[in-house]
Amino acid sequence: MSDKSIVLAFSGGLDTSFCIPWLRERGWDVHTVFADTGGVDAEERAYIEARAAELGAASHVTVDGGPVLWEGFVKPFVMAGESYQGQYPLLVSDRYLIVDAALKRAAELGTRAIAHGCTGMGNDQVRFDLAVKAAGDYRIVAPIREIQKQHSQTRAYEQAYLEERGFSVRARQKQYTINENLLGVTLSGAEIDRWEAPGEGARAWCKPRAEWPAQPLRVTLGFRNGEAVSLDGETLPGAQLLAKLNTLFAEYGVGRGLYTGDTTIGLKGRIIFEAPGLTALLTAHRALEEAVLSKAQNRFKPEVARKWVELVYEGFYNDPLKFDLEAFLKSSQACVNGEVVLETAGGRVDAVAVRSPHILNARGATYAQSADWGVEEAEGFIRLFGMSSTLWAEVNRR
Amino acid sequence: MSDKSIVLAFSGGLDTSFCIPWLRERGWDVHTVFADTGGVDAEERAYIEARAAELGAASHVTVDGGPVLWEGFVKPFVMAGESYQGQYPLLVSDRYLIVDAALKRAAELGTRAIAHGCTGMGNDQVRFDLAVKAAGDYRIVAPIREIQKQHSQTRAYEQAYLEERGFSVRARQKQYTINENLLGVTLSGAEIDRWEAPGEGARAWCKPRAEWPAQPLRVTLGFRNGEAVSLDGETLPGAQLLAKLNTLFAEYGVGRGLYTGDTTIGLKGRIIFEAPGLTALLTAHRALEEAVLSKAQNRFKPEVARKWVELVYEGFYNDPLKFDLEAFLKSSQACVNGEVVLETAGGRVDAVAVRSPHILNARGATYAQSADWGVEEAEGFIRLFGMSSTLWAEVNRR
Amino acid sequence: MSDKSIVLAFSGGLDTSFCIPWLRERGWDVHTVFADTGGVDAEERAYIEARAAELGAASHVTVDGGPVLWEGFVKPFVMAGESYQGQYPLLVSDRYLIVDAALKRAAELGTRAIAHGCTGMGNDQVRFDLAVKAAGDYRIVAPIREIQKQHSQTRAYEQAYLEERGFSVRARQKQYTINENLLGVTLSGAEIDRWEAPGEGARAWCKPRAEWPAQPLRVTLGFRNGEAVSLDGETLPGAQLLAKLNTLFAEYGVGRGLYTGDTTIGLKGRIIFEAPGLTALLTAHRALEEAVLSKAQNRFKPEVARKWVELVYEGFYNDPLKFDLEAFLKSSQACVNGEVVLETAGGRVDAVAVRSPHILNARGATYAQSADWGVEEAEGFIRLFGMSSTLWAEVNRR
Amino acid sequence: MSDKSIVLAFSGGLDTSFCIPWLRERGWDVHTVFADTGGVDAEERAYIEARAAELGAASHVTVDGGPVLWEGFVKPFVMAGESYQGQYPLLVSDRYLIVDAALKRAAELGTRAIAHGCTGMGNDQVRFDLAVKAAGDYRIVAPIREIQKQHSQTRAYEQAYLEERGFSVRARQKQYTINENLLGVTLSGAEIDRWEAPGEGARAWCKPRAEWPAQPLRVTLGFRNGEAVSLDGETLPGAQLLAKLNTLFAEYGVGRGLYTGDTTIGLKGRIIFEAPGLTALLTAHRALEEAVLSKAQNRFKPEVARKWVELVYEGFYNDPLKFDLEAFLKSSQACVNGEVVLETAGGRVDAVAVRSPHILNARGATYAQSADWGVEEAEGFIRLFGMSSTLWAEVNRR
Repeated sequence: MSDKSIVLAFSGGLDTSFCIPWLRERGWDVHTVFADTGGVDAEERAYIEARAAELGAASHVTVDGGPVLWEGFVKPFVMAGESYQGQYPLLVSDRYLIVDAALKRAAELGTRAIAHGCTGMGNDQVRFDLAVKAAGDYRIVAPIREIQKQHSQTRAYEQAYLEERGFSVRARQKQYTINENLLGVTLSGAEIDRWEAPGEGARAWCKPRAEWPAQPLRVTLGFRNGEAVSLDGETLPGAQLLAKLNTLFAEYGVGRGLYTGDTTIGLKGRIIFEAPGLTALLTAHRALEEAVLSKAQNRFKPEVARKWVELVYEGFYNDPLKFDLEAFLKSSQACVNGEVVLETAGGRVDAVAVRSPHILNARGATYAQSADWGVEEAEGFIRLFGMSSTLWAEVNRR
Repeated sequence: MSDKSIVLAFSGGLDTSFCIPWLRERGWDVHTVFADTGGVDAEERAYIEARAAELGAASHVTVDGGPVLWEGFVKPFVMAGESYQGQYPLLVSDRYLIVDAALKRAAELGTRAIAHGCTGMGNDQVRFDLAVKAAGDYRIVAPIREIQKQHSQTRAYEQAYLEERGFSVRARQKQYTINENLLGVTLSGAEIDRWEAPGEGARAWCKPRAEWPAQPLRVTLGFRNGEAVSLDGETLPGAQLLAKLNTLFAEYGVGRGLYTGDTTIGLKGRIIFEAPGLTALLTAHRALEEAVLSKAQNRFKPEVARKWVELVYEGFYNDPLKFDLEAFLKSSQACVNGEVVLETAGGRVDAVAVRSPHILNARGATYAQSADWGVEEAEGFIRLFGMSSTLWAEVNRR
Repeated sequence: MSDKSIVLAFSGGLDTSFCIPWLRERGWDVHTVFADTGGVDAEERAYIEARAAELGAASHVTVDGGPVLWEGFVKPFVMAGESYQGQYPLLVSDRYLIVDAALKRAAELGTRAIAHGCTGMGNDQVRFDLAVKAAGDYRIVAPIREIQKQHSQTRAYEQAYLEERGFSVRARQKQYTINENLLGVTLSGAEIDRWEAPGEGARAWCKPRAEWPAQPLRVTLGFRNGEAVSLDGETLPGAQLLAKLNTLFAEYGVGRGLYTGDTTIGLKGRIIFEAPGLTALLTAHRALEEAVLSKAQNRFKPEVARKWVELVYEGFYNDPLKFDLEAFLKSSQACVNGEVVLETAGGRVDAVAVRSPHILNARGATYAQSADWGVEEAEGFIRLFGMSSTLWAEVNRR
Repeated sequence: MSDKSIVLAFSGGLDTSFCIPWLRERGWDVHTVFADTGGVDAEERAYIEARAAELGAASHVTVDGGPVLWEGFVKPFVMAGESYQGQYPLLVSDRYLIVDAALKRAAELGTRAIAHGCTGMGNDQVRFDLAVKAAGDYRIVAPIREIQKQHSQTRAYEQAYLEERGFSVRARQKQYTINENLLGVTLSGAEIDRWEAPGEGARAWCKPRAEWPAQPLRVTLGFRNGEAVSLDGETLPGAQLLAKLNTLFAEYGVGRGLYTGDTTIGLKGRIIFEAPGLTALLTAHRALEEAVLSKAQNRFKPEVARKWVELVYEGFYNDPLKFDLEAFLKSSQACVNGEVVLETAGGRVDAVAVRSPHILNARGATYAQSADWGVEEAEGFIRLFGMSSTLWAEVNRR
C-alpha cells in the first residue's frame, strides 16, 4: 500500500489542473484518471493526457466511460423509468462512474486516497464524497474546497497559482454554466437562475423549431429484459445506441426541459436540461412496461423507482439500499421484451406502436366493448370493490 | 319522498335515449338531467332537451357543468399536479360532476333512485356506481347493463326498441370511440386498441405540426392559493379560463398523449388523449410549486397527489379519504401565489418564467457559485448526512 | 392430460367432505390433497386419509406443509417484518401453500382442474381463487359456493347430503370460529364480532397471566441472511424452530392480539390471533435489522414490506409483483447475520441483546456523548439539512 | 427591539446553569424560560426559579408545558398513530414546546435571540436549531457547543467555570442517561449502548412483573374527533388525562420498549423507553379507527402519519409540510368518536371493546358467515379484482 499515491479525477479544466501541483507540493504522487463519458472528442482527450503530464502527474489513465455509464446508470435508470421531481433525468450521474474509475485505479495502485476538484458550494461534492465514503474507508482530498477556506476568489487564485509556476491557463468565459456528457447537457446561470425566460443562446444540442427536419422521424427500439439492445433492428452496444439516439432526436428538439430542483443541500436550483436519447429510451420503455407489466407491478414499481432516483441524486450511489432497489428493478424486467416504435414530428416523442409476446391482451377481446365476463360479475365486482366506501356512506351519510 | 321518481343522467345519445321508455315501462317517472361539461354547443343542448321531452321525460334540467367541474375536479387536480400512471389527466372525471348533478336533482325531487346509461363492460359504471353508493343509500338502475344480461347486440336491440315505439334514432358510425368535454378528448378503438400506430384521423383538437402557427405563443397565468385565476392579467372564472387555454394550446398541438392504462377492472386500455388546457395549467402550476414549496413539501406532496388521482380514477370520488387528501392539498397551496409565463413553439409547453414573492431564493445569492455558508459547513453536512452509509461501508467493505 | 381428474384441497371437515361425493356425482375423479401445516396430530392425519377413501377419493396425498410454509411464507414474512394493518401476522397464509400443493398434485396427474371448499362469503375464496388463477389457466370448482346459489342453510344441506348417502358426519358445535396451523390460531365470532370484550374462553395457545411460569424465559435466536437458523445454539429446520417457539412463548402469553381488519371484500373483520412463534421471530429479526441495516434501508424497506403483506393478504400470492418485492427483500438481508437474545417475563417479548459483526457502531464511540466529528461539522449539517425549511421561514414568516 | 436580550431555555441542570454567566459575560441580558412538561415537582420548580436568579438571569418565567405539549404534540401524534421506526413514541418532542415557549417569550421581550444548552454531539441540537430556524430569522447561541470547540471535557469545564464564580454545583452521577417528561422516560448509556441486556436498574416508571397488581386493570377512554377527552366517563384536560394514564398503566409495566434507532445524524442509538400513557392512548385510538375509518383511509393514513413522525423526529417541527400533514390528519378524524375499553393484566394492553355510532358494520350481518350479497357477486369480484394477475399468468405461464 502506497501512502504517497493519490488518485485524482481529472478533466483538464482549471480546477483539476490546479489540483495537480497543489497536491504535489503537499507530498502526493498524483495519478490522474480521466473518465470519458462522452463530453469530449479525440483531440480534447489527447489534450487532457498531455495536460496531466505537463502538470506533473505521476501517471495518467483514460477510461472509456461509455460502457460503465450505460451499465451502472443508464440501464437501471431506464428500468426505473422515473426522473428527479418528475422532471430531471439525473444528467450529473456520470460523477459516480468517475468515482468508480478512480476507485478502481486506486485499487490498482494500492492506495486509499482520492482527490477531486469539486467546490464546497455545490451538490457535486456531496455525490463525489458520499460515493467514495460508502465504498469503504478512503481519505478524500478536495483541494478547491481547501483553498476556499482562505480565498473567496477561487478561480482567480487558481489561475495565478498555475501561472506563477509557469503553467498556461486556457481562458474560457461563458454566459452559462454548461455540463455535457453522454447523458445530455445542463445549462444554468444568468437569467435562468433568476427564474426569467432563458435567452436564445441557452441551448446546446436540441434544435429550435425553425431547424427541425420537415419529415417526421420514426425509429424502432428493441428491448430485452428492460434493456434497449437494438435500433431499427440493428443490435448495438448501449453507449453507442444512446449516442445515436442523442443525435437523431436532438434534431427534433426532443428531450429539452426547464425546471427548478430542490438540491441536496436544500437550495433551489433552476436549470435547462437536454437529454434527447434518454428521453427516447424512457418513452419507449414506459410504453412497453404499460403493456406487459401487471397492474400491481405498474402501480408499485414507481415507488421503488423514485427512491432509486432520490438516492442517486443525493449521493447515495453506493448505499446498500440502492442495490436492494436494483434487485427489485431487475426482477420486474423479466417480461419487458419486445419492440417499440417511436415517432416525432418535433418537440415531443410518442411511442406509437408496441410489439411483444407479453402484452396483457384481454385474450383478443376489444377493450370495454365486448368481453366474456357477465354483467352480474361486473355488478358483483363494483359492489364488493366499493363495499367499504358504501358502508361508510350508509353509516355516516344517512 | 317520491318512490316513483328516478333521476336519469341524460346525454341524448342512443344509450340514455333508450333508458327513458325502458324506465317508464317499468313504472318510473323519469327526470332527466344533462350536465353540460363542455362537449356540446347550444344547438345540441336544445336538441337534448327536446329529445328528453319527446321520449317522455317527466322533467328535464340542463346544468352548467363548467363551474362544478372546475371546483370539484380541475382545482384539486391541478393542485395535486399528478396524472394517472404519470400520463393520463383523468379526462373522464366529468362523470363525477354528472353524478353530483343527478344527486342534487334527486334531493330536489325527494327521491333516492338514480339511473345511468353505462354498460356492464367498462370502467365508467364503476365510477358512476361507486360515486352514488359512497354518497349514501341510493337505488341505482342501469338499464343497459340490465338488457346486456339477455342481449349480446345491445345497441341493435336499443335501436329496434326505440324504433318499435316510434322514436327516431340518430345513426352515427365512427372509426374511434370519442369522449369530449371541457377537460379534453379521448380516442380509443380500431388500431389504437391493437397497440399499432394511430392513423392520421385519430386526432380531435390538437393540430398536427403542419398547421401550427409560425409564431410562438406566450401566455401568463396568475395563481392564487394554487388556483389559476387570471390569463395575461385578465381575471377569469375557471371554466372560461380552461376553455380559452384549450383553444390557444390546441393550435400548437400541446397536451396530446398516447398511453396504455391499467383500468379499474384490470384490463389494459390504450387511448389517445388531448388536453391542451389542463396540460398548460399543470405545467405552470408545477413550475410555481417548484419555486415556492419547501423541499419537504415538494418531496412528499406527490404521494398524496398520486393517491388522490388513483381514487378519482377508480371511482372513489366520494370516499372520505378523498376529502382528507384534499385537506392536505389545500393546506399545501397557501404560498402558491404568483405568475408563470408559458411558452410554446409547438408540441410541448415550457414554463419559462416564474414570479412570486414566495420564491425560496438563497437570499439573492447565485446558486452553487457563491453562498454565505463556509466550506467547513458543507464538509460537516456531507459527513453527517452520509454517516450511516459510511459506517455501513466501514463495517462491511473494509 | 386427464379431463376427468380434479384435485381437491381436503381437510376432512364437513365442507371438504361434502365436496368429494358432490364432485364425483358430477363426473369427476377426485384426488384429495391434505397439506399438513401444523393444525393436526398424527391421529387426525390418519383420520383424514381414511375419510377421503371412505368418501370415494380416487387417491389421497398428505403433504408435509411445514417446510413449504416456512420457505414460501415464513421466511419472506419475517424478512419483510411487517403485519397487516400493523397488527395481524397473516395467519391464513397457509392457504397459499395448500394451493401450491394442489397445483403440484395437478401437475403430477396431468390435470388443470382444482377444487376447494371455500364459501362464497369470506376472503379465503379470494386467496384460493386468485392464487390458482395467477398460476396459469386452471378450472376452479368451488362446490360450497355452487350450492350456496340455491341453499341458504349450507351446512345443514351438506350434512343431509352426506347422511343420505350413508356417510357419517362429525358434529362440532363451537362458540368461536377457530383456525389453527403452524403459524398460529385465529378466533372470531360471537362477542368478538360485536366489538365487545372477549370472554375467557376466547383463548387457544396463549396462557393467561395466572398460568405464566414464574421464571422469565430467555432464548437466543441465530440468523443467517435474515433467516432464523438456530435456537439456543442448536441448528433447526425452520418449521421445527417455529413449532418450538410457539410452545415456549405461548406459555408466557406472548403474541396474542385483537384487532379489526379491513378485509379484501371491504367488510370489517374483528379477530383474536395468537402467534407466539412468529411474534418472537419478528421481534428478534427486527432488533437485528435495526442494528445492521443502513438508515436508508431501515427507512425504505417497510414500504416494500407493507406492499408484500398487502398482496399476500389480498390473494396476490402469485402476482409477479410479489416476486419482485421478494428480490428486494432477499437483497436487503445480506448482512442480517448474528444472534439475538429474546426475553419475556410474560405478556410481551423484548430483544434484550444483539450480537453481529455487522452492527453499525460509531467506531466504538459512545453515542451522543463523545464522537470524533467536530462541533463545526454538526453546525454545518444542521444548517444545510434545514436549509429549505429555513429559507421558507425567512421568505414567508419575516 | 432589544439587541442585548436573549431567551435561554433553562432546566436548572449543569449545562443550562453554565449558560447564564457565560452569556452574561458576553454582554447578554439573559431571560430564562422553564417549560414544565412534567418531569419535575413543585419543589424542583421552585429550585429552578431560584437558581436562575442566583446565576444572574434578568427574568425568569415558568410555563405550564402540559397543555401546549398535549395540543402541539400529543393530539396530532395520537391522531397519526405511528411511532418512529414502528417503535419509538417520540418522547423527546417536548423540545419543540420548549422552543415554542422560548419563541413566545422572545416575542414578548422584542428580541430574536435564543439560547439553548444542547451539545454539538447529539440530535437534540438538530431539533432545537431547526425548530427555531423554521420559525423565522433568529440568532441561535449554543454555549455548550461553543466551548466544545476548545474543550473536550465539557462538563468538568462547566463545573470549574461555575465554581470559580462562586456558584454551587449539584453533583449527580448516574448509571444511565435519563430523560423524563409528561410523555415518558428514556434511558440510554452503559450496557444499553453496547447492545447488551439491560440490567435491572434500567427501569424508571414501569413496574417489573413481580410488582404488578393481582387484579387486571380496565379503563374506558372517550374520544371526540380523534382526541381523548374522558377517562371512565370523567371529562379531563389532556395533560391530566395523560398523567393519570401514565400512573395507571406504569403499575402494569405497560408501554416499555427497547430499540435501536437511526438518528438524524446517522448514528445508531439504542434506548429503553417507557411511555405507559401514550401507549394506552395509541392502542385505544387505533382500535377505534380500525372500526370507523373506511378501508381506503386505514390503508393510506399511515403513509401520512409516518411522514409526520419522521419530520417531528428529525427537527422539522415547523416546516410547512408538517402543517399540511396535520390538515390531513384533522380531516381524517371527523368520525373518530366513541369509547374504547382498555384492559391489561400486565405487560401489554388490549383494546377489548369499542363503542361508536360510526362503526362500519355490515348492516348488522355477522361477518363472513352470512351476508346479503350473492355468490355470483363474489365470483364476479374475484374475477375482475384478479383480472390483471390472471391475464399475466395466461400470457406468461401457459
